[in-house]
Amino acid sequence: MKPKITIILGSSSDYKICEKTINTLEKLKIPYDVKVASAHRTPQKLKYQVSKATEEGTEVFIGIAGLSAQLPGIITSYTHKPVIAVPVDVKVGGLDALLTSSQMPFPEPVATVGINNGVNAAILAAQILAVHDKKVKERLISMKKDFYEKIIKSEEEITEKIK
Amino acid sequence: MKPKITIILGSSSDYKICEKTINTLEKLKIPYDVKVASAHRTPQKLKYQVSKATEEGTEVFIGIAGLSAQLPGIITSYTHKPVIAVPVDVKVGGLDALLTSSQMPFPEPVATVGINNGVNAAILAAQILAVHDKKVKERLISMKKDFYEKIIKSEEEITEKIK
Amino acid sequence: MKPKITIILGSSSDYKICEKTINTLEKLKIPYDVKVASAHRTPQKLKYQVSKATEEGTEVFIGIAGLSAQLPGIITSYTHKPVIAVPVDVKVGGLDALLTSSQMPFPEPVATVGINNGVNAAILAAQILAVHDKKVKERLISMKKDFYEKIIKSEEEITEKIK
Amino acid sequence: MKPKITIILGSSSDYKICEKTINTLEKLKIPYDVKVASAHRTPQKLKYQVSKATEEGTEVFIGIAGLSAQLPGIITSYTHKPVIAVPVDVKVGGLDALLTSSQMPFPEPVATVGINNGVNAAILAAQILAVHDKKVKERLISMKKDFYEKIIKSEEEITEKIK
Amino acid sequence: MKPKITIILGSSSDYKICEKTINTLEKLKIPYDVKVASAHRTPQKLKYQVSKATEEGTEVFIGIAGLSAQLPGIITSYTHKPVIAVPVDVKVGGLDALLTSSQMPFPEPVATVGINNGVNAAILAAQILAVHDKKVKERLISMKKDFYEKIIKSEEEITEKIK
Amino acid sequence: MKPKITIILGSSSDYKICEKTINTLEKLKIPYDVKVASAHRTPQKLKYQVSKATEEGTEVFIGIAGLSAQLPGIITSYTHKPVIAVPVDVKVGGLDALLTSSQMPFPEPVATVGINNGVNAAILAAQILAVHDKKVKERLISMKKDFYEKIIKSEEEITEKIK
Amino acid sequence: MKPKITIILGSSSDYKICEKTINTLEKLKIPYDVKVASAHRTPQKLKYQVSKATEEGTEVFIGIAGLSAQLPGIITSYTHKPVIAVPVDVKVGGLDALLTSSQMPFPEPVATVGINNGVNAAILAAQILAVHDKKVKERLISMKKDFYEKIIKSEEEITEKIK
Amino acid sequence: MKPKITIILGSSSDYKICEKTINTLEKLKIPYDVKVASAHRTPQKLKYQVSKATEEGTEVFIGIAGLSAQLPGIITSYTHKPVIAVPVDVKVGGLDALLTSSQMPFPEPVATVGINNGVNAAILAAQILAVHDKKVKERLISMKKDFYEKIIKSEEEITEKIK
Repeated sequence: MKPKITIILGSSSDYKICEKTINTLEKLKIPYDVKVASAHRTPQKLKYQVSKATEEGTEVFIGIAGLSAQLPGIITSYTHKPVIAVPVDVKVGGLDALLTSSQMPFPEPVATVGINNGVNAAILAAQILAVHDKKVKERLISMKKDFYEKIIKSEEEITEKIK
Repeated sequence: MKPKITIILGSSSDYKICEKTINTLEKLKIPYDVKVASAHRTPQKLKYQVSKATEEGTEVFIGIAGLSAQLPGIITSYTHKPVIAVPVDVKVGGLDALLTSSQMPFPEPVATVGINNGVNAAILAAQILAVHDKKVKERLISMKKDFYEKIIKSEEEITEKIK
Repeated sequence: MKPKITIILGSSSDYKICEKTINTLEKLKIPYDVKVASAHRTPQKLKYQVSKATEEGTEVFIGIAGLSAQLPGIITSYTHKPVIAVPVDVKVGGLDALLTSSQMPFPEPVATVGINNGVNAAILAAQILAVHDKKVKERLISMKKDFYEKIIKSEEEITEKIK
Repeated sequence: MKPKITIILGSSSDYKICEKTINTLEKLKIPYDVKVASAHRTPQKLKYQVSKATEEGTEVFIGIAGLSAQLPGIITSYTHKPVIAVPVDVKVGGLDALLTSSQMPFPEPVATVGINNGVNAAILAAQILAVHDKKVKERLISMKKDFYEKIIKSEEEITEKIK
Repeated sequence: MKPKITIILGSSSDYKICEKTINTLEKLKIPYDVKVASAHRTPQKLKYQVSKATEEGTEVFIGIAGLSAQLPGIITSYTHKPVIAVPVDVKVGGLDALLTSSQMPFPEPVATVGINNGVNAAILAAQILAVHDKKVKERLISMKKDFYEKIIKSEEEITEKIK
Repeated sequence: MKPKITIILGSSSDYKICEKTINTLEKLKIPYDVKVASAHRTPQKLKYQVSKATEEGTEVFIGIAGLSAQLPGIITSYTHKPVIAVPVDVKVGGLDALLTSSQMPFPEPVATVGINNGVNAAILAAQILAVHDKKVKERLISMKKDFYEKIIKSEEEITEKIK
Repeated sequence: MKPKITIILGSSSDYKICEKTINTLEKLKIPYDVKVASAHRTPQKLKYQVSKATEEGTEVFIGIAGLSAQLPGIITSYTHKPVIAVPVDVKVGGLDALLTSSQMPFPEPVATVGINNGVNAAILAAQILAVHDKKVKERLISMKKDFYEKIIKSEEEITEKIK
Repeated sequence: MKPKITIILGSSSDYKICEKTINTLEKLKIPYDVKVASAHRTPQKLKYQVSKATEEGTEVFIGIAGLSAQLPGIITSYTHKPVIAVPVDVKVGGLDALLTSSQMPFPEPVATVGINNGVNAAILAAQILAVHDKKVKERLISMKKDFYEKIIKSEEEITEKIK
């Protein structure tokens, strides 16, 4: 199946964050692809990958990067699709990557989620697909319901503990 | 025309940021609506507005708020549509609003753009619509092209200055 | 005995902080209840819990949450009782949770104590009860006295060490 | 009428923040007193004022101070009543005062509200009184209602503007 | 004369910082060129400018940009020449631009100077040229000497004042 | 011998930092005393200790404290002797303690040294004594000389390594 | 009269902060000298000034500098006298200068006071002199007394206002 | 062979960062020298080393230091060669060293690279040499190519993993 979401890692060391994104997309049955391409180290490769993925039907990009996390911003230069950033904590608690990702100038926004929060990137991507895709929407609603039940269960466990 | 984007302000004092969002949406000919509703001060009103807007066809929400900018996060509680946050600089340079907006827990992401960057919120919302709406996509491409021409012009002006 | 203090955790992972609150309330013989309910993930449940606890006699709420720690702020939307926040250090040293908790807009204050400081939340809650409850006041005074004696003892130990 | 709330300013230059606290307490018809006494500059005076106010029936203290805002912390040394801090922005955006106020060690909590947020200090103090004082509670509910109506009005104004 | 230094502005609004760079280069008689090209908004133009400038003899690049100041980092993708960054204070005191500029990953360093410090960018560029260009070296030494004399004069003025 | 320096710890958990101060004072043969007394938890004890130490000949105080590190500031309220602060890293990297220690208002300065830097507090105290005490001055000069020799040795070791 | 305190400014633009230091020293009748000498720009001059001032009887140095405020640290390289730093707010709220001043390594402490707090530098210097100089001690006590009376007066004024 | 790059460590504990610089320079076959000399602790030694290295042909200096990382700034006082700073994370995530290194005043720039990023310091130094040294330039291009191939390989590995 053709990927609807293309995840690009700034470095293979960001894979641990990416795994959380992948697991969530798997649960939501959304086809995805994963690439490694640095904004500065392999700019031509990145441009090619983004252009090709856009042509082949990618609807949302997710850029995962730490430090001066310019990857998501550069992806926006090569596509008109929405780009989500996951700032990765490598130094200074991830504040560098958070500021680099979010403080993009006009007219190239990057949709920044929380530091290391690979799961939320997947959910946000799914929400964007769900604007027009009812099946994804239903799976999102179902995922939240499961989560709600987990919270009820963890409350019960805590209630047990404090008795 | 039915609004595709619903902008919600945490306070009427955030209107100056909102104006930039509105102007950009106007240029892109995307129908929108603007509400004022605080996450904490009028939670019932907020819930009602978000639910109703979702039912009536809003595809993307934009929450504009400063300080402990919880508004965008609360909007996500009441809808499955993507929610964009514009952190507003009221205190500490807007870092409080940036952290509150972006650091949302699983599974409720907020797509955070730059501090006070009402324009980028509009562009991001348009990119999300453009996934399935060719007309919006074309207008986005055209807007970027205009912008590119402005940059060429401003370079010419600077080249004049430094002669 | 009916709980006078209701502690709400944003996530079951915040339980380690909560334990310190519980231990202190136990020593002060103040009846309490513990719930798990997320501001965004289970908003209806949270609203129900806060409203019910308020009706059943809770006099002070304590919200324990990390990241974009919106839980205490949302509790204030559903009650007129004072709400205490314990910001939890999950990322960036807890600065995100501290700013989200404290920077609440008018007219919805949250009484923020130190990062991870579950004990101080219990003491502050007890001080609020003690405004009208002499027994709690006496136990607070006695607890401080015990603590004072501990400090004297630790000074003696240090004096021994440096001889 | 005997003051139920004692406001202490670290410096007369903090009066501009205090005025907002006073105005809110006036609206809520809560008797208050205002003092100026520095934690370091006049420690004996501060001790005397806090002890005397506690004896004469003060139920909540509000300390308003900037920079190394130690005033609220020192007030807690001399009373068992709850102490609210308003961190004032004098330098570094008020982050120094926010951290000094909130990061108090065990067992001396300070209930910290937002930077410069004198109004929220008044509301929090009123919420504490309202635990046992029905009249204050009613006035708080009424104040929020008024505020809610203001928000509706400001939304109408904005709706007018964007037509 | 062919430019040895190419200054690229992220936006024409950064021109005020650039003027300080230009004035210093003029004093040092180093030929330069000034361009406006955004990392994200006009990536192809930027690539073309950097490649062409490199071919035509530019020895050092200076990127001046605020917010998520990715411009200097992107310049390094298209050249093997050293790239200097001047972070511009647009929001949060320029900390966003400072972190984005300096925290570049391996193997694409950016030589970051102080926030808004357009003069130091010129001096650093001149120091790099001076490694092999004796005339630039002599002019640098002479410029420092002039500056030293200014400091002596300003001390004399202050000595006068405090008499 | 009567102590010339009185070290006061905010908590016995700060002893690990204090040990470095003590070791340095021992090397400099400066008599000292160590106390544990919290600014908020045992204010009367602190006042008594500071007043008594001042009377008995203490010439410099060193306050070691973390979090809202108010101890050094309170010491200044009870003495006219210089007070040195060592901010301890307990949370947020010690930035809270650094800001609380340094940002003291007029006219109660605290001489703040680096985070956890118990050695520098001892050196600074010795420098103050050395203003009028030649023996301490000689020992300081000798200590620096020893240190200089250590650096030469560590350079030799590194030179060996990189051969 | 020979200066007991030598104030060194990193730049003549720091004079506005220095004036507050001078005024306080004048009130305390402590002879002082003021120099301008940059740590980096005129290192030889700085070394000469510090050595000479030390020989001629300066007992305390005060370094006033912004940005990367290395001046006070460099002064400590050339003298065994205590060195006080006043971090000046030029950028990022003065946090750069505060961190540079306070985070000095072993064995070269700098006694850092609050950002822009030229007055506290003078008081701290006077406290150091007062260790052995009774007259300075008496004037310090008298200055605090005057200040105490001012606070009483400002309280009276505020009491008038709120009637 | 005469060193073209002189690396100076503020402390032998910074050697772990320096090793990464050395390894990169070895790969690029650039002759270098390593010294240990503190800006404050051995200022005369530092001055001598920098002057001598400059005379003997060093073209670029690299200063590696943590905390109040004044070493690179002081190196600029004694040479007209470009100076690169590697801020080392010892406290507060290395923000102190980053600000001290980058925020240098006019006319003494320091070319600051990322926190702990010893590799990028080597690359930047090589880029500066490569302005006039074709062999270094070729080796830089070759090193990037190797790196590019590594990225392709790590993508293949990740592609394997997610199958």
